[in-house]
Amino acid sequence: MIRSNENFSKMSDSYLFATIAAKVAAHKQAHPQEQVISLGIGDVTRPIVPAVVQAMHAAVADMGQAASFHGYGPEQGYAFLREAIAKHDFHARGIAIDADDIFISDGSKCDVGNIQELFAHDCKIAVTDPVYPVYVDSNAMAGRAGNWTGTHWDNLIYLPCTEENDFVPDFPKEQPDIIYLCYPNNPTGTVLHREALQAWVDYARNHKALIIYDAAYEAFISEPDVPHSIFEIDGAAEVAIECRSFSKTAGFTGVRCAYMVIPRTVQVSAPQGKMVRLRDLWHRRQSTKFNGCSYIVQRGAEAVFTPQGQQQVRAVIQEYMDNAASICTGLRALGLRCFGGVNAPYIWTKTPQGMASWEFFESLLKQASLVCTPGAGFGFSGEGYVRFTAFGTAEQSAQALQRIAHLSL
Amino acid sequence: MIRSNENFSKMSDSYLFATIAAKVAAHKQAHPQEQVISLGIGDVTRPIVPAVVQAMHAAVADMGQAASFHGYGPEQGYAFLREAIAKHDFHARGIAIDADDIFISDGSKCDVGNIQELFAHDCKIAVTDPVYPVYVDSNAMAGRAGNWTGTHWDNLIYLPCTEENDFVPDFPKEQPDIIYLCYPNNPTGTVLHREALQAWVDYARNHKALIIYDAAYEAFISEPDVPHSIFEIDGAAEVAIECRSFSKTAGFTGVRCAYMVIPRTVQVSAPQGKMVRLRDLWHRRQSTKFNGCSYIVQRGAEAVFTPQGQQQVRAVIQEYMDNAASICTGLRALGLRCFGGVNAPYIWTKTPQGMASWEFFESLLKQASLVCTPGAGFGFSGEGYVRFTAFGTAEQSAQALQRIAHLSL
Repeated sequence: MIRSNENFSKMSDSYLFATIAAKVAAHKQAHPQEQVISLGIGDVTRPIVPAVVQAMHAAVADMGQAASFHGYGPEQGYAFLREAIAKHDFHARGIAIDADDIFISDGSKCDVGNIQELFAHDCKIAVTDPVYPVYVDSNAMAGRAGNWTGTHWDNLIYLPCTEENDFVPDFPKEQPDIIYLCYPNNPTGTVLHREALQAWVDYARNHKALIIYDAAYEAFISEPDVPHSIFEIDGAAEVAIECRSFSKTAGFTGVRCAYMVIPRTVQVSAPQGKMVRLRDLWHRRQSTKFNGCSYIVQRGAEAVFTPQGQQQVRAVIQEYMDNAASICTGLRALGLRCFGGVNAPYIWTKTPQGMASWEFFESLLKQASLVCTPGAGFGFSGEGYVRFTAFGTAEQSAQALQRIAHLSL
Repeated sequence: MIRSNENFSKMSDSYLFATIAAKVAAHKQAHPQEQVISLGIGDVTRPIVPAVVQAMHAAVADMGQAASFHGYGPEQGYAFLREAIAKHDFHARGIAIDADDIFISDGSKCDVGNIQELFAHDCKIAVTDPVYPVYVDSNAMAGRAGNWTGTHWDNLIYLPCTEENDFVPDFPKEQPDIIYLCYPNNPTGTVLHREALQAWVDYARNHKALIIYDAAYEAFISEPDVPHSIFEIDGAAEVAIECRSFSKTAGFTGVRCAYMVIPRTVQVSAPQGKMVRLRDLWHRRQSTKFNGCSYIVQRGAEAVFTPQGQQQVRAVIQEYMDNAASICTGLRALGLRCFGGVNAPYIWTKTPQGMASWEFFESLLKQASLVCTPGAGFGFSGEGYVRFTAFGTAEQSAQALQRIAHLSL
């Protein structure tokens, strides 16, 4: 008899956004005349910028000629892209990250989902709450999360991020080995300022823990005292790794490209007291179970760093952040409390009259054909909130506000 | 202290092909004037065919316009591609595979590396020997392979495929839960004829085992009695899943697209004696840790199934198979025994005078600047063989033979 991984049976049947997609599809089928506006899943809507389109056309043409054809690329990613990243995302900010410590992939969801494979089965995991579900689910699948109690996993350390602590997680009582931090935060849209992030890096150093820092929304930072990379922080290169993505920065959600930075100074203990470089373990993992990101996509990503590419992607990000500002203003004018939207494309909104988040989600869907993401889907500290995204068009964002205004709440 | 996954420390530091690449790089640096010919790693050399290039240009253009832009796609893959696959690869051969049981990914290496996550930790694994290293390494990383003895993993069941058994594996004495079969075979280039594959399917049914069937080289089959899919075999849809790839079929090694077929009739046991569909577990895994294959790539893959696409990829495959035929003929004329090359792009060659395979590999590299893959790298039953691929150009294949002829062996 082939037995399944028992941990799968502890999990909900479907991934949060798959559940929401099913509900939205049912609503559309029941009300085909309604124009549904989705400010739900954090998917971009603006097209790929011309500099990237041009680079991808050139790469497709390369692939059609024997002399410029590219077969298997390096599993770690092409040097042309890793060097462009090192230069523009790190050296330009005075951060010493080597191209050799950068690993290109087809997405941050894969990277953050797969990275846990490198750690011992009994490593203790801490996550902020609410949280991007992949950190939790990938550890649950590996058996590190323990059992699901109906509200939480009993072997995870949760770090609540709420209005009370200004969305800055407190240090836990129990000692974690691995700490997932995502800033600018998904789903709350809030940030850690330099001092708070330094405190977490110091905590990790003092407690011999590792921080997995997800900076997928780095490009949306508008305020000066917010670190763009954890490696801006003293001592981080010994205790942190960082995930970055082209998904939101350059609209690559359907193109697929991301990268992971694992400085060679990050070491973990192996059997017999040996210390090994985490980058070497990741390299072994990636060269065994991954075959590199598409050449066409990597050429597209490289073009993001050209002067035209930078100018074009910055303009798109500005459009989204203009939406974020008008959504925040509009929600507040309607008497709703909201957070985020300044350094992130997410607006974390308190439900009216203490409604449960799935209840508010259902009202918005049924009464206004408007899709948000219920905060409770991100963890129990998300209860009583919903997340709106700024990734719609300006018109959709304005219309969404009008529809909320006309709701009978 | 952050502890690493202890299983990584049991593994060799690098993946087979990474080791070879390092040796080749060192040789090139020491002898910059030499023209190295690689018939080593199974990478294609012919460009992407015009029908696919055209489809990818169109897809890149789609991504550059708001109206036709595609963000996150379905994790399982677009219906347009899954339906094309179901129709052309299965229905056309009279096989009832539903598009809903097909999962698109960015590569078979990922699929075969990740699939083991769905199974219980103590599932017993059987692999043919020699074997594509990913089946073994991915299970070793998960702790299912036991300990490395210096020649083999002590908790794997090895199914030797040698000249003695005509490269058809015998049934094992010990009962496996999961059996990896790759046919046409990498590395030996040999096949299982219909009757032999039926016997394995019957074995799996009788022993409640699962066959993971890797059919990456299906497109190279030239003889009539060789199954293109395991689902041509009676009863396979209850006990087998199949991996397919565009890498060799359509030269996608640098483009990245593959798929996995998991019929809904394949069930595995979950805790409390419940039976669950393996496809549902894979869907949960993929929607948690994968974000879909690039839209541009999927449009390219779809074009492989157009009449022009089919004609063009068949012509390329014929070129490679012409190489395979001339390499076989040439090696035999030199007095070397070789296998494969008829239904697969690999020629499995016995080393002369009983040389060890790494020794012959080094001679070829040093004396002839010719790269092959040492059979021992694929497992202990591969000792005394090397693998040549037919993926070079006709000129390279001919030149390689000349260089071997001039060796002093």
